[in-house]
Amino acid sequence: MEDIANGGKINGPTNPMVTPLLTDLYQFTMAYAYWKAGKHNERAVFDLYFRRNPFGGEYTIFAGLEECIRLIANFKLREDEISFIRESLPSTCEDGFYDYLRGVDCSDVEIYAITEGTVVFPKVPLVRVEGPVSVVQLLETPLVNLINYASLVATNAARHRFVAGKSKLLLEFGLRRAQGPDGGIGASKYCYMGGFDATSNVAAGRLFGIPLRGTHSHAFVSSFMSPDEILDKSLNSSDGTTLCEDFVSLVQAWLRKLKRSHILGGLFGETNQSEVAAFTSYALAFPNNFLALVDTYDVVRSGIPNFCAVALALNDLGYKAVGIRLDSGDLAYQSCEARKFFCAIEKEFNNPHFGKMSITASNDLNEETIDALNKQGHEVDAFGIGTHLVTCYAQPALGVVFKLVEINNQPRIKLSEDVSKVSIPCKKRCYRLYGKEGYPLVDIIIGEKEPAPKAGERILCRHPFNESKRAYVVPQRVEELLKCYWPGTSDKHREELPPLKDIRDRCIQQLEQMRPDHMRRLNPTPYKVSVSAKLYDFIHFLWLNEAPVGELQ
Amino acid sequence: MEDIANGGKINGPTNPMVTPLLTDLYQFTMAYAYWKAGKHNERAVFDLYFRRNPFGGEYTIFAGLEECIRLIANFKLREDEISFIRESLPSTCEDGFYDYLRGVDCSDVEIYAITEGTVVFPKVPLVRVEGPVSVVQLLETPLVNLINYASLVATNAARHRFVAGKSKLLLEFGLRRAQGPDGGIGASKYCYMGGFDATSNVAAGRLFGIPLRGTHSHAFVSSFMSPDEILDKSLNSSDGTTLCEDFVSLVQAWLRKLKRSHILGGLFGETNQSEVAAFTSYALAFPNNFLALVDTYDVVRSGIPNFCAVALALNDLGYKAVGIRLDSGDLAYQSCEARKFFCAIEKEFNNPHFGKMSITASNDLNEETIDALNKQGHEVDAFGIGTHLVTCYAQPALGVVFKLVEINNQPRIKLSEDVSKVSIPCKKRCYRLYGKEGYPLVDIIIGEKEPAPKAGERILCRHPFNESKRAYVVPQRVEELLKCYWPGTSDKHREELPPLKDIRDRCIQQLEQMRPDHMRRLNPTPYKVSVSAKLYDFIHFLWLNEAPVGELQ
Repeated sequence: MEDIANGGKINGPTNPMVTPLLTDLYQFTMAYAYWKAGKHNERAVFDLYFRRNPFGGEYTIFAGLEECIRLIANFKLREDEISFIRESLPSTCEDGFYDYLRGVDCSDVEIYAITEGTVVFPKVPLVRVEGPVSVVQLLETPLVNLINYASLVATNAARHRFVAGKSKLLLEFGLRRAQGPDGGIGASKYCYMGGFDATSNVAAGRLFGIPLRGTHSHAFVSSFMSPDEILDKSLNSSDGTTLCEDFVSLVQAWLRKLKRSHILGGLFGETNQSEVAAFTSYALAFPNNFLALVDTYDVVRSGIPNFCAVALALNDLGYKAVGIRLDSGDLAYQSCEARKFFCAIEKEFNNPHFGKMSITASNDLNEETIDALNKQGHEVDAFGIGTHLVTCYAQPALGVVFKLVEINNQPRIKLSEDVSKVSIPCKKRCYRLYGKEGYPLVDIIIGEKEPAPKAGERILCRHPFNESKRAYVVPQRVEELLKCYWPGTSDKHREELPPLKDIRDRCIQQLEQMRPDHMRRLNPTPYKVSVSAKLYDFIHFLWLNEAPVGELQ
Repeated sequence: MEDIANGGKINGPTNPMVTPLLTDLYQFTMAYAYWKAGKHNERAVFDLYFRRNPFGGEYTIFAGLEECIRLIANFKLREDEISFIRESLPSTCEDGFYDYLRGVDCSDVEIYAITEGTVVFPKVPLVRVEGPVSVVQLLETPLVNLINYASLVATNAARHRFVAGKSKLLLEFGLRRAQGPDGGIGASKYCYMGGFDATSNVAAGRLFGIPLRGTHSHAFVSSFMSPDEILDKSLNSSDGTTLCEDFVSLVQAWLRKLKRSHILGGLFGETNQSEVAAFTSYALAFPNNFLALVDTYDVVRSGIPNFCAVALALNDLGYKAVGIRLDSGDLAYQSCEARKFFCAIEKEFNNPHFGKMSITASNDLNEETIDALNKQGHEVDAFGIGTHLVTCYAQPALGVVFKLVEINNQPRIKLSEDVSKVSIPCKKRCYRLYGKEGYPLVDIIIGEKEPAPKAGERILCRHPFNESKRAYVVPQRVEELLKCYWPGTSDKHREELPPLKDIRDRCIQQLEQMRPDHMRRLNPTPYKVSVSAKLYDFIHFLWLNEAPVGELQ
């Protein structure tokens, strides 16, 4: 697991492909135009935010900040990168620009951001970037890229956790279907942040210290022909005191016993011998961690009895099998059948705990299928989720934007015929106001120089664009949202970048403190985001000032 | 642009995060179980393929092969990686396994694959991997990861090209919304392969030699207040013979002239001065490449007249403006209005070519919106496409799978209650049969030792799972699909990895040679994939052999 900070210095981005060139060409053409106009050092403030929560929900998890800070802390164009920019811009561009680029870094940029892992809402700036306009624009594309998918997939993970419930184990199995290699690595990181327990992705486990999980595949099962293939059949007992010389025969004896059993007899006939060979072999390799994929041939008539025979043989030697994985078919039915079988064995062979054998389900799971399983009733203990989770199948992009709100101390507004696309001008501060029950009530955005809201003091919260929507609030607690993560040349305290585990804990705690009606899957109540009365007035003053007066013809 | 091969040696994957650890943990647990059972060197054959074409279409572009070969050519676990695997596996695993891992590479693996950029269809193996079972399984996850998204997004690009038509310029603008940094870089590469003309992504332009495009953003426009800000107002004429000392005034003069004009008069009033300042400034920086984003305030009443004033001023100095970009609102209407305005200027000021000014459209475009624009009628010359293209919004994952088809010369089949999920067993060869008109007629999969189909010879093509679907074909031309890209220890000729530009050319040519009914957006005809009579019989023999006989109760 890599340290975030390395002897005081912040390490570069996890993916070495994240360089100052990972940006849109127009950031460089604009930088040139700014430079040519002598405007490049004008101090600009940009807000990074999104306009709509994803997945039809009313909340989002903010993620990706650490990678942004890693980029900013190491932002410096190399000579070969500058040469490439020179080749890419028109040959008429003046040499002085490239000298200027040589000196560009983020030492004069200030980053204020919401803490990573926080539950966040539309329109509230997640990151406020202040600095020389041309440098801040170069940052636009990578910052948006690093936050967009991170926040989307963390939110997706949180939603899957919500529907699965706290007690289930959630495993991220998405690497093979992810959108490219670090789509997979990023998914593992941010799904863990959003509340997953483990990943199958070894590289991500190593990079981020995420617990790893995995057993075997269908190919492993079908690679065996019969138990005769197993050459080394011996297995020491768990306590090391005795040696079972023929574990293969022990398994076969249990299979026969199961078939003859009073309770189980007649439930199955001949099980698949290539399957039992694979299970036996896997148990010999991992006697303490035996978890078998039971659906290669037929779950109920082959996979489960074969698993149980091996598990019972392991039990004879003092080992406890972990459980099974189901990867196809009717998971509700199969898990219930498996549980019945396990409980019957517990009873028949007086084998305590056998009934509690873990059942993992995978196969194209998503929020809807887990919800459907819950409604049908199931006996699944752990869900392995891949494609839908990591590609955010239900909505594969979050619309994070990056808008200029102030330059040279002049507020700027971006108008649009679509009101939801109008930006909130000015350098701002943001607060979360909490009510009596401890729930967040409303976020409020105020001008940077306005007095902060105070606990116990009444404040008017206005909808930024709808004049009739407003409410007085007396917060019990006030939390400032934007904190300084990169102070630039200011003497502000720089917030530490916490380890992933702490961000995950924060995220889970944040989700738990939300009022339940904001979180429900069906028709959730929107959480309110407001502006101060003063900022409201200013937005609308500026709007009228900038918008052309139409003429009806 | 990086070379693929570096002095005979094939370079590693583009993304340095693609290492042997970029795999699922279970590939290592299985490797251990194989090793423990003495099975790890058993020779296995796996097929990589998909089951359904994406986006409701009937074709897919195969992409990602080069990155797979780069991984395979450099596949070697480092000591620190082996230590991490040791930490991740149970402590009971024997030391000999880690010694084994130290020696693992792909020298004994053979890769047969379809040429990258080929149009491909469900069930046909895209890649056939042969080698020691435990090594081939380690490759499963990264190969599937590297091919899944690559093929998906290349196909998406090809579909966008199809609907936009050959004559339009297609620009990939997706970096900021992509699923992570190399989701962006991969998108740029594979969209270019699928028929796009350029990208905005500087890093991708550099890595792959893709043409770069980009102009300026809304923030650039709103960062200006008025033309008074522009300090250096001088501009040399295009031929360098004269100096215009006040280009800003020249633009303002043109603005007044446009307003007073006989034809244009009354079409607009005061245009936004911050906008004309930004345009003027951008033109001063890029007099040969002036392309302006015209929708920051009001396209028709401000953006277009401001653009035209700057373009006419540039024209006075011998420069030709490039055109405009529209990024919101009704793109069909706006593009037509812009064209009318440009044509009116061409006429009024006798300015040839002004009517042909390029119009680029962006803003959440996808197949459907381009199709709708086509139906409404529009004047757009270039489309900038981001979110929908790079995240494959309409279907964000392709279901590429990797199935064991043979081990120790024994054919293996993976059964499933869902017939479409049954795998085609055996080591196989694949051919594309072409008809009289030059179109591909059908793909046929045969056993490795069967005689190849021959041009002019009748062959029976059977649906692999539907006994009634079969047809005799007399191909005019026969093309073998799987070629050797990594010969392992065999003495086969290794196919070269062609440069991206060649793959792109192949892809475009491949798409053009398809029968049009397979390619249409609505209700395309499925292209047929078949097996030989002999393979058909063998599949069904094996199926009956492996499937348990049910009992109706």
